[in-house]
Amino acid sequence: MRREPTGGAGEPAVDMNGWVCPMPLRDSPTIVMGHGGGGAMSGELIEHLFLPAFGAAADAGLGDSAVVTIGGARLAFSTDSFVVKPLVFPGGSIGDLAVNGTVNDLAMSGARPMVLSTAFILEEGTALAEIAHVAEAVGTAALAAEVTLVTGDTKVVDAGHGDGIFINTAGIGVIDDGVDIRPQRARPGDVVLVSGDIGVHGIAVMSCREGLEFGTTVCSDTAPLHGLVAAMLATGADIHVLRDPTRGGVAATLNEIAGVAKVGVSLTERKLPVPAAVRDACGLLGLDPMYVANEGKLIAFVAPEDADRVLAAMRAHPLGAKAEIIGVCVAEHPGMVVARTALGGTRVVDLPAGEQLPRIC
Amino acid sequence: MRREPTGGAGEPAVDMNGWVCPMPLRDSPTIVMGHGGGGAMSGELIEHLFLPAFGAAADAGLGDSAVVTIGGARLAFSTDSFVVKPLVFPGGSIGDLAVNGTVNDLAMSGARPMVLSTAFILEEGTALAEIAHVAEAVGTAALAAEVTLVTGDTKVVDAGHGDGIFINTAGIGVIDDGVDIRPQRARPGDVVLVSGDIGVHGIAVMSCREGLEFGTTVCSDTAPLHGLVAAMLATGADIHVLRDPTRGGVAATLNEIAGVAKVGVSLTERKLPVPAAVRDACGLLGLDPMYVANEGKLIAFVAPEDADRVLAAMRAHPLGAKAEIIGVCVAEHPGMVVARTALGGTRVVDLPAGEQLPRIC
Repeated sequence: MRREPTGGAGEPAVDMNGWVCPMPLRDSPTIVMGHGGGGAMSGELIEHLFLPAFGAAADAGLGDSAVVTIGGARLAFSTDSFVVKPLVFPGGSIGDLAVNGTVNDLAMSGARPMVLSTAFILEEGTALAEIAHVAEAVGTAALAAEVTLVTGDTKVVDAGHGDGIFINTAGIGVIDDGVDIRPQRARPGDVVLVSGDIGVHGIAVMSCREGLEFGTTVCSDTAPLHGLVAAMLATGADIHVLRDPTRGGVAATLNEIAGVAKVGVSLTERKLPVPAAVRDACGLLGLDPMYVANEGKLIAFVAPEDADRVLAAMRAHPLGAKAEIIGVCVAEHPGMVVARTALGGTRVVDLPAGEQLPRIC
Repeated sequence: MRREPTGGAGEPAVDMNGWVCPMPLRDSPTIVMGHGGGGAMSGELIEHLFLPAFGAAADAGLGDSAVVTIGGARLAFSTDSFVVKPLVFPGGSIGDLAVNGTVNDLAMSGARPMVLSTAFILEEGTALAEIAHVAEAVGTAALAAEVTLVTGDTKVVDAGHGDGIFINTAGIGVIDDGVDIRPQRARPGDVVLVSGDIGVHGIAVMSCREGLEFGTTVCSDTAPLHGLVAAMLATGADIHVLRDPTRGGVAATLNEIAGVAKVGVSLTERKLPVPAAVRDACGLLGLDPMYVANEGKLIAFVAPEDADRVLAAMRAHPLGAKAEIIGVCVAEHPGMVVARTALGGTRVVDLPAGEQLPRIC
């Protein structure tokens, strides 16, 4: 991105090093919290900054999880960093998220998760007892997710230049022959399912931030979804797409799929399972549950003739007991998600721009 | 690590959550910079905190790079986070380190690096131009290292809770049949080689920190070593151990190998290639070049009958032109590294305790 300063009208800003701000978008030449929200601004950062900068070294997709063939094996490979605040919240901790987040990204490719790496960035002054508590959660979650922690790294940054504990995990899973699950396979006619209550994780994290208290405790839904996916695959159904609606919630996930596959999504709003406590908290905070993060739920696009048996398989699994059919994939309004409301109207469910709830994972 | 508070003498400290500090060692119940130095304190953190906390979920090794068999393929898998300060330094940037560091960890298992993940933790307020400059370095380095960037993640933390840009990379490489390179294979009689000048990276980073200036510019040696390793393997030699002496330098790496393999290492100090500029800077700063980080060098332990042809292959490669035989592996003083000095004496080269140069990678 180095080029001669030009200063001409309409040119991107050039700083004192001669480095160019590649994204003269929104209001700022610097990073803002919204770039980390998993919505439109995150997408712009990837499209306008990372992909051009990486150039020929990047695989075109750069998705949540890559499918690669190495040494004759068809593998899923994924990474996520976790910066949730606070580190411990009702129902879990950054340690649970770090394992389940990467396990779920692998499972959403239809892969069986096998091994994880763990890399900690620790802030000087963080209590060893707190780190041990989080590391124990990592170990317990890995056992539950049936993955082995095989390699790791620890870095320390000076006080005031980190925030207690950041964790990165990367993982490898193996994809069985015949499994082909990716957003591009969504097509008109597909039935859209969700595996259970939405919006729970985001509200759980918000509930324990300073100054916020709700009447009831909402516990995070953080959970490994590899077993639920295995049960769905075991039906022999043609599952086209799987996705876990984390940052940006169900709205961001459905918009992403609609955009990639160039299809429309038509939701029946009253079919979305929203627990009363989440609905109340969202009312208080002015949030829409469809935009709130989940850490133990999945969205599935399934061929219509297979929808009933996939739904039955989901409901027979503890992590899919409250599964629902929430909509259909349509040829109309490609790239757009539309919800039919309880009153019979329709509304567009936009891709969120920035960050409703910062640092929820 | 949750247990009842006891308060008994000799018991580990228990905090208000009931969480136990598992490592009542050194002077502090909290993280200090030395825990990130790659020396004895880093080892204690892994041994006394992470491994017990991970429990049965951890593979016994938890080394720099794991060798796993997945879907019939023999793979190397490695991760590292990068927190170097400043982000750009003579000879490179955090972007180069993030690619070369993981590529080299894979190569040190004898693997051919194939794919990388990249995960950025960005601090609110960081200039997009600076991120683009670093991301471009990632792309350029990946092309040079012949790896594809296949998946990624971006998180944003609020201003004052990060430090510009942290990068994690994880990588997968494939290990060809018959290749078995690991520290446990070091054995008495092995010849110990280094691929070139030592101490360069650490001094390059130090040279541009506030208040420090040396007469000459020392440029980081950051480089991908997969090609050098391929040239060494192509000789057909029995290479027992490869290791890149990063944090803690040659001293930490040799101590780690000696400890794992329960062998001694005897060095000829005057054979260590130390550039004059590094020697001068170390004199000024009171450092020993053997403890200063490298980012484009490797240490090899080779069967004695193969040493000459491996040395020749290294010297024929641009990244090994200054390779030297620096010592031998011995049965005496197992776990210990001893240097024979220019004056004919000997001195013990200890494992560094903490951090000589914080945040050099």
